[in-house]
Amino acid sequence: MAAEQDPEGRAAARPLLTDLYQATMALGYWRAGRARDAAEFELFFRRCPFGGAFALAAGLRDCVRFLRAFRLRDADVQFLASVLPPDTDPAFFEHLRALDCSEVTVRALPEGSLAFPGVPLLQVSGPLLVVQLLETPLLCLVSYASLVATNAARLRLIAGPEKRLLEMGLRRAQGPDGGLTASTYSYLGGFDSSSNVLAGQLRGVPVAGTLAHSFVTSFSGSEVPPDPMLAPAAGEGPGVDLAAKAQVWLEHVCAHLGLGVQEPHPGERAAFVAYALAFPRAFQGLLDSYSVWRSGLPNFLAVALALGELGYRAVGVRLDSGDLLQQAQEIRKVFRAAAVCLVGDPWGSVPIAVSNNIDEEALARLAQEGSEVNVIGIGTSVVTCPQQPSLGGVYKLVAVGGQPRMKLTEDPEKQTLPGSKAAFRLLGSDGELAEEPAPQAGQELREPCTVRPAQVEPLLRLCLQQGQLCEPLPSLAESRALAQLSLSQLSPEHRRLRSPAQYQVVLSERLQALVNSLRAGPSP
Amino acid sequence: MAAEQDPEGRAAARPLLTDLYQATMALGYWRAGRARDAAEFELFFRRCPFGGAFALAAGLRDCVRFLRAFRLRDADVQFLASVLPPDTDPAFFEHLRALDCSEVTVRALPEGSLAFPGVPLLQVSGPLLVVQLLETPLLCLVSYASLVATNAARLRLIAGPEKRLLEMGLRRAQGPDGGLTASTYSYLGGFDSSSNVLAGQLRGVPVAGTLAHSFVTSFSGSEVPPDPMLAPAAGEGPGVDLAAKAQVWLEHVCAHLGLGVQEPHPGERAAFVAYALAFPRAFQGLLDSYSVWRSGLPNFLAVALALGELGYRAVGVRLDSGDLLQQAQEIRKVFRAAAVCLVGDPWGSVPIAVSNNIDEEALARLAQEGSEVNVIGIGTSVVTCPQQPSLGGVYKLVAVGGQPRMKLTEDPEKQTLPGSKAAFRLLGSDGELAEEPAPQAGQELREPCTVRPAQVEPLLRLCLQQGQLCEPLPSLAESRALAQLSLSQLSPEHRRLRSPAQYQVVLSERLQALVNSLRAGPSP
Repeated sequence: MAAEQDPEGRAAARPLLTDLYQATMALGYWRAGRARDAAEFELFFRRCPFGGAFALAAGLRDCVRFLRAFRLRDADVQFLASVLPPDTDPAFFEHLRALDCSEVTVRALPEGSLAFPGVPLLQVSGPLLVVQLLETPLLCLVSYASLVATNAARLRLIAGPEKRLLEMGLRRAQGPDGGLTASTYSYLGGFDSSSNVLAGQLRGVPVAGTLAHSFVTSFSGSEVPPDPMLAPAAGEGPGVDLAAKAQVWLEHVCAHLGLGVQEPHPGERAAFVAYALAFPRAFQGLLDSYSVWRSGLPNFLAVALALGELGYRAVGVRLDSGDLLQQAQEIRKVFRAAAVCLVGDPWGSVPIAVSNNIDEEALARLAQEGSEVNVIGIGTSVVTCPQQPSLGGVYKLVAVGGQPRMKLTEDPEKQTLPGSKAAFRLLGSDGELAEEPAPQAGQELREPCTVRPAQVEPLLRLCLQQGQLCEPLPSLAESRALAQLSLSQLSPEHRRLRSPAQYQVVLSERLQALVNSLRAGPSP
Repeated sequence: MAAEQDPEGRAAARPLLTDLYQATMALGYWRAGRARDAAEFELFFRRCPFGGAFALAAGLRDCVRFLRAFRLRDADVQFLASVLPPDTDPAFFEHLRALDCSEVTVRALPEGSLAFPGVPLLQVSGPLLVVQLLETPLLCLVSYASLVATNAARLRLIAGPEKRLLEMGLRRAQGPDGGLTASTYSYLGGFDSSSNVLAGQLRGVPVAGTLAHSFVTSFSGSEVPPDPMLAPAAGEGPGVDLAAKAQVWLEHVCAHLGLGVQEPHPGERAAFVAYALAFPRAFQGLLDSYSVWRSGLPNFLAVALALGELGYRAVGVRLDSGDLLQQAQEIRKVFRAAAVCLVGDPWGSVPIAVSNNIDEEALARLAQEGSEVNVIGIGTSVVTCPQQPSLGGVYKLVAVGGQPRMKLTEDPEKQTLPGSKAAFRLLGSDGELAEEPAPQAGQELREPCTVRPAQVEPLLRLCLQQGQLCEPLPSLAESRALAQLSLSQLSPEHRRLRSPAQYQVVLSERLQALVNSLRAGPSP
């Protein structure tokens, strides 16, 4: 029942969510008497996604939840026994049954921090066998979270601070949890809200949504609502038949727009009336089920004006097809003229929301100076990250038994940096991030050019110590604020989305010397 | 505890895994007295993914699990109440508390069937309010499953029937369930196995995996295993110190290869020995942690030959960097020569496995005639479907209250086909799928050109009737077999992956007439 009572319980990844080779290696370490050797791994990526020069660190809260719950159940151990050699020593399975993360220590970039190639997002230390088993789930939990947060941050930078961005990609995600992760971390990256109700329930993401075409097309206009009456917003005075009032307004609207009163689709109007009866304070019209100009817009105006007479204000319209920018401009003109001619009311400013496969390029157009679009719903291109659908995170052994380890493959891109490391960020006097790291007491840092940082920030924070949470994790909203602050500190040449200047990460002299000595030949 | 005891329990999607607008529309329908109107939706896609001419239907088993478990808990209803207007009639929430899928009927393409644009993968009928709420979760469960199964099928077509394909993309997936879905449905689409242990435990996908670079680099060579002895494969005779025996073989191997005996990395050899002690019958060498030619290959040969002396046979090598095809050719030559010179044994045929960002193009090269590659591990490009990371599935209202419904938007691509439909597939006399549908008793089908099908197959099967499962679902392996059979029946011009002939789906005369009449003007 515990899983049912904890709303997040079911969301924690299971320990067998791992690659089989982690389990086979576990047996290999155990057989070699090395299960409890002290080891340290680093999780990092090698290149910033999407051709940019930054990424946002994210996924730590899911890692912490996973690590604290990590425990192999009997059924898990039995399954592993079924895929490992039948003559495996039963003592190995006893060892697995007793495993947890009580000896694991994690240092991490706080969620919402800037992350750069080669700098660890996580440093995980503990007994070799267990920290090896954690590789796949930690990569799974960090990589996509960081990718989608970075993608969302790019979209936010393109949209500017004023546009409201709604994530609505659940149906395009890789199954249920893909959607939950996408909604959570696109909010962290800078979106305002999500359509995903579960992300609201489990993660506290603000949720938003009104109606779809199916609602509109489900009405023919011949339906008779059980209660057509709507009370005035102020709550005093008799109720009014909203459909009848909208019909009266429709005549004014059609006259104003030069349309025949038969042209607007009666089913669409009935749908708008039904929605307005349920949401008189949050009525939004979806305009393009039939024809925006001959049906959606006049029907919306008729219902919005009827609501207005009762003291309610429509919250907006939505467009889901066609040239969204141009339609928004024209609709705004109609709203302004209608407001002046028909009611003398300022609701010409009613928000215009748009959606329909909006990518970075389309968003840049919708966000241009003078655009009348206020709310932008993005699904596929935030959730699937089509420009680069995976971050390519890696988790590499850097030390074991206190000795640095390095992968010296012939592919230079796949070489690793040995040893347990610290990472620092150097800020210029204006608070912007400086170009290169520079010395600090106790840290030898190589300087390809001279930098005098005004501040030096240690990047990695102690998050779990011997399995214990060291400080409460920030809320999702706090991490979201940190992301926006971090991005604002990044200099414009690194923040640029196309052909940015690469942010420089340099090695200390001592680390460089260690790399050179390990490259020189087999380690002792 | 039920969720804990049912290994799949936690995997069922939750009812609030939906877009908020489904809940707001639910309130709209309820307020309009239409919650229980009979409605039918169809789930389909508009274009085949990846520029191909086919897709595989998948995800049905997850939909069935979701629908049978569908029930809003108190906490779910309370959350919805918190985001809906505060003055919402409490009777609406009582209605939600009582909801389940006991009045929902689903017809579906069986998993592993071929799917084409516009032809429903699911037909979902039941009370309007509940079938509307199901939209997002059903799209989420079907779209990615079908996309990744189709992607896997393409990779299988490229690889041919002989190569063993291993899915290993868990760390590149959209969080835990993205990985589970990917592993499940890439197996359905034609892969042989997955690295994902959870997919093995929960879904019965065959799992595979051996060792990673971190295992290799964790050894320096100075480690002393608690028990270095290995008994012969036949189980008789005294154990042998495997490391010592490998050291003896190393001298022969280095002499044979013209290498100094100090060149191969001692830590790598120690790692191979440790792995072989744990898996004497399943020893695989990962060759590229240091240098394939100067270290990985001689170390592998030394340990494999030592094992061979004890009657064990190595199961292969793996390469994870560099030119995989060329290295495989050269390694095969070395194996053959070494087998002849050193042992006179046929193990020159030991399988060669490769991995490292393999996409369709790289796979085609590895699968070419004469390639010595036997096993191909694919992660990112099967799981993330980078050519097109979402299927773009839609779920459209086609009938309500027995009346056909159609979205008549000005965007012709977004128009829908009205009414409850049947779908048939026409097979030529050779069992291959014919070009066009043709008439059948009781079905008026328009014929743009004349076809005489030898067989007519109804495509959609009754899956759930009033919430009850109509027949047991096939096992995953059965669906995988259906997928391979279906693909073999598709004619080569439709199966082609680039610039294929489009498979034709035509409307019956009656359906075309209905479309025309609904287009002509507002429905009654």
